[in-house]
Amino acid sequence: MDVTTENFEEVLREIKPLIDECDFLAIDCEFTGLDEAPATAVGTLQSVGAGMTKYAGMTAEEELQSRYEKIKASTTFLVGICVFTWNAQKRSFIATPYNFYTFPREFKGLDRRFLCQAKCMSFLSSNCMDFNKLIKSGISYLNKQEEEFVRRGISSKETEFVATIRATIAEFLADETRSILMLPQCDSYRRMLIHRDLSETFDDCFKKENITVEREVSIKLHKNERTSSLGTTKAKIMESISSLAQKVEEKQIQAAVGFRHVIDHISASKKGLSFSGGTRLDAVFRTVMHDPFKRPIIGLQDGCDKYKNNTQLHEAGYDAYITGFVFLRTAQQIVMKSGSPSNSPQGKSSTGLTPRLKDLGVSCRPIDVMIETLKMEGLMNKIHVMGGQLFHSLSLDDSGDNKMATSQDNGSIMGQMEVVTDVPHDPVHGSNGKGLWQIATSRSRNGKFHARDSRRPRQDSFEGNHAHKGQEKRPRMSV
Amino acid sequence: MDVTTENFEEVLREIKPLIDECDFLAIDCEFTGLDEAPATAVGTLQSVGAGMTKYAGMTAEEELQSRYEKIKASTTFLVGICVFTWNAQKRSFIATPYNFYTFPREFKGLDRRFLCQAKCMSFLSSNCMDFNKLIKSGISYLNKQEEEFVRRGISSKETEFVATIRATIAEFLADETRSILMLPQCDSYRRMLIHRDLSETFDDCFKKENITVEREVSIKLHKNERTSSLGTTKAKIMESISSLAQKVEEKQIQAAVGFRHVIDHISASKKGLSFSGGTRLDAVFRTVMHDPFKRPIIGLQDGCDKYKNNTQLHEAGYDAYITGFVFLRTAQQIVMKSGSPSNSPQGKSSTGLTPRLKDLGVSCRPIDVMIETLKMEGLMNKIHVMGGQLFHSLSLDDSGDNKMATSQDNGSIMGQMEVVTDVPHDPVHGSNGKGLWQIATSRSRNGKFHARDSRRPRQDSFEGNHAHKGQEKRPRMSV
Repeated sequence: MDVTTENFEEVLREIKPLIDECDFLAIDCEFTGLDEAPATAVGTLQSVGAGMTKYAGMTAEEELQSRYEKIKASTTFLVGICVFTWNAQKRSFIATPYNFYTFPREFKGLDRRFLCQAKCMSFLSSNCMDFNKLIKSGISYLNKQEEEFVRRGISSKETEFVATIRATIAEFLADETRSILMLPQCDSYRRMLIHRDLSETFDDCFKKENITVEREVSIKLHKNERTSSLGTTKAKIMESISSLAQKVEEKQIQAAVGFRHVIDHISASKKGLSFSGGTRLDAVFRTVMHDPFKRPIIGLQDGCDKYKNNTQLHEAGYDAYITGFVFLRTAQQIVMKSGSPSNSPQGKSSTGLTPRLKDLGVSCRPIDVMIETLKMEGLMNKIHVMGGQLFHSLSLDDSGDNKMATSQDNGSIMGQMEVVTDVPHDPVHGSNGKGLWQIATSRSRNGKFHARDSRRPRQDSFEGNHAHKGQEKRPRMSV
Repeated sequence: MDVTTENFEEVLREIKPLIDECDFLAIDCEFTGLDEAPATAVGTLQSVGAGMTKYAGMTAEEELQSRYEKIKASTTFLVGICVFTWNAQKRSFIATPYNFYTFPREFKGLDRRFLCQAKCMSFLSSNCMDFNKLIKSGISYLNKQEEEFVRRGISSKETEFVATIRATIAEFLADETRSILMLPQCDSYRRMLIHRDLSETFDDCFKKENITVEREVSIKLHKNERTSSLGTTKAKIMESISSLAQKVEEKQIQAAVGFRHVIDHISASKKGLSFSGGTRLDAVFRTVMHDPFKRPIIGLQDGCDKYKNNTQLHEAGYDAYITGFVFLRTAQQIVMKSGSPSNSPQGKSSTGLTPRLKDLGVSCRPIDVMIETLKMEGLMNKIHVMGGQLFHSLSLDDSGDNKMATSQDNGSIMGQMEVVTDVPHDPVHGSNGKGLWQIATSRSRNGKFHARDSRRPRQDSFEGNHAHKGQEKRPRMSV
């Protein structure tokens, strides 16, 4: 489903319980640029290779961080989120894909600048990206820091002017002898401010008209039953107006926070996330359509037929769908092989879970075994980055954890697992600046999940757990 | 007329003679961003005022340069060019507006990055900008430096691979004993490179097919009459191929240079240019629809009816049209008043041209007088920047020249003229780096006009007049 400002509120109500009940989610993003250009080269054509980073010799974490650094000057246009839920009756996973159009909006003194790369824009255009829909109806978003900034408010000439007009109106309403108010003459911009405030804060309760006298225009207001409900004394009326204005402002801020509501809910759900991260997702997807990857069965939710028989590569909702699809089929292979020590070089992951589940009295239907095993192997409630060649499982626990690098080449090499212990502390950014996956969810020492804005190293978590101030809050991220 | 890649070649043939024959041109641009954000703030929301520059206390030249500096990190999406030609028979100016969709394209290793500002994009969207059309069919452009870069060529794995395939084909064609060539097996990307070269360089002269053997694909070529025309010896065939490849490359480069062909032609024409530069162009336009601005009559070219009864503000072609419209009506007022010493504070511009023209036997029909007077007053063949409040006439002569600042406020103050003498030499960039108006046209000491890429200070002119190397080529710009 395509989600824009027009249906966002409705979809938000719909997706929240879906996230709560799902087994995991897959996410894919389309960006305006991929290579960060040096600041001096902005606005110029430059050689294609100039912004490229060589990844050879990097650890998986370094590579992902490096990729994140490159794209952070750009912005996200499309966010695909696909929710996967096991349906016991249908004995299959049900996938519900969403295609969120997101676009930054100027709001209360904030105005985002972002980089575009000619090649990326042409690429998205050739993949049928609807830029008109995006810029006209893309959903706004603010991170926590930006939300705080707009909540602090800015006193401007405009806000001061509106406050004066409100006081004039309150005085008029409190004066029983008057039924008509002529607001002061002003230019068209200020009239627009007044009309907007009359519409938003006063909910169009006034009968009003524009009166032109010698080319100068003023607004004339008439008292009526609805306006009298605001109160009878000036103090009471000012209180009513202030309360109404606060409600309007809160609604506007919630709309501006926009898409972050989805990310916040995902973060709070603590659900496993599967990210697309490579360049050959379509090839991997074709691979897992055949033996030995034919299980589990994955169906699309009723009403989400758009992707049933059509490939819509680089539409983020579709890419998220096939990312989760690949994750499930690859994970099933890993689980099936996890009983065999030969697939687990250091023996740590080979816990022989299947027989143990049997002992525990857990149902032995293959799919239940798979889900339970994924959970016990720690493949659920983690972040997975799916690429054309690699499959990274990023654990966020404090304890030393697993890195699973599953080579994915025509299905010939599968199920390799490596175990690494820990990641050296980054002296510059700390582990708080880990970026890409931290933007979605991370776990701090107290075991809670926090969504973080990865653009700001060392910032407080979105939940602002002030009790932890001064403590080392570095979430240990093993990859 | 809207111009995209689909009709650009045709429009280029049409607009060149129009430029040669016109009296002047008006230009308007729409940009992806207006305020340059600090490099550190790219990718973040930031306060609206942060990128703003205060213009108070700046000279007109400094202000224009400052405005140019702010927008140069962004890119131009729409360029409106409106050509104005006096039609003696109709006793009116005929305006022919064009609306060029321009978009940078990746080409031979060059890939432009540019800044977008959320507010600007929303603004263009609310003014019905068609972003899909723009990104899909926008006309490419390269400046002279970029053209030189792509002409130098880059040796890449791709070009080396294509060269190897060409040599294999030449050898095959020179060998009379063979009629079929199986090219080496390769991956889909390299097959795409081969197919593209067979299509572009070899003009599809081969009968060809893809042959799959044990999942590996190769391309099979058949000799025929058309291929035999390439030559009989390997040397001759290689020469033919090289010549064909050069022609194809030249055509590709010309297409990539794209919109610069228009700018180059305008520059060579030495015609006067009128730029929109302010924020209240619509208000000024409405002003010059009434007394005392009712002359001259300006009509739209047949077939350009889109703007006849519709305002299409911020569509660049329309803005260029009303910019030229305002220029003509304002200029006529200035000319009409130029006989009166009271309107010319320092007396210099008051040359009493109208009676002198009479003495010279020039026709005294008002419009001829106006055109001749504009030419003699130096208002033709100059660059004019039209704003909501100001009207700058930028002379590019070596001699000290006029600055005309015509206050434009509801038509009440008109026809003021100031005369300034010279502009101090900029020790950092020289006058070569003047930017905004230099991008279009400037005059060097030898009296020739040169288009310049204002992004590169001190660069050679597009015409590359090497005879002048070593000389001081600073075009004196009086404002």
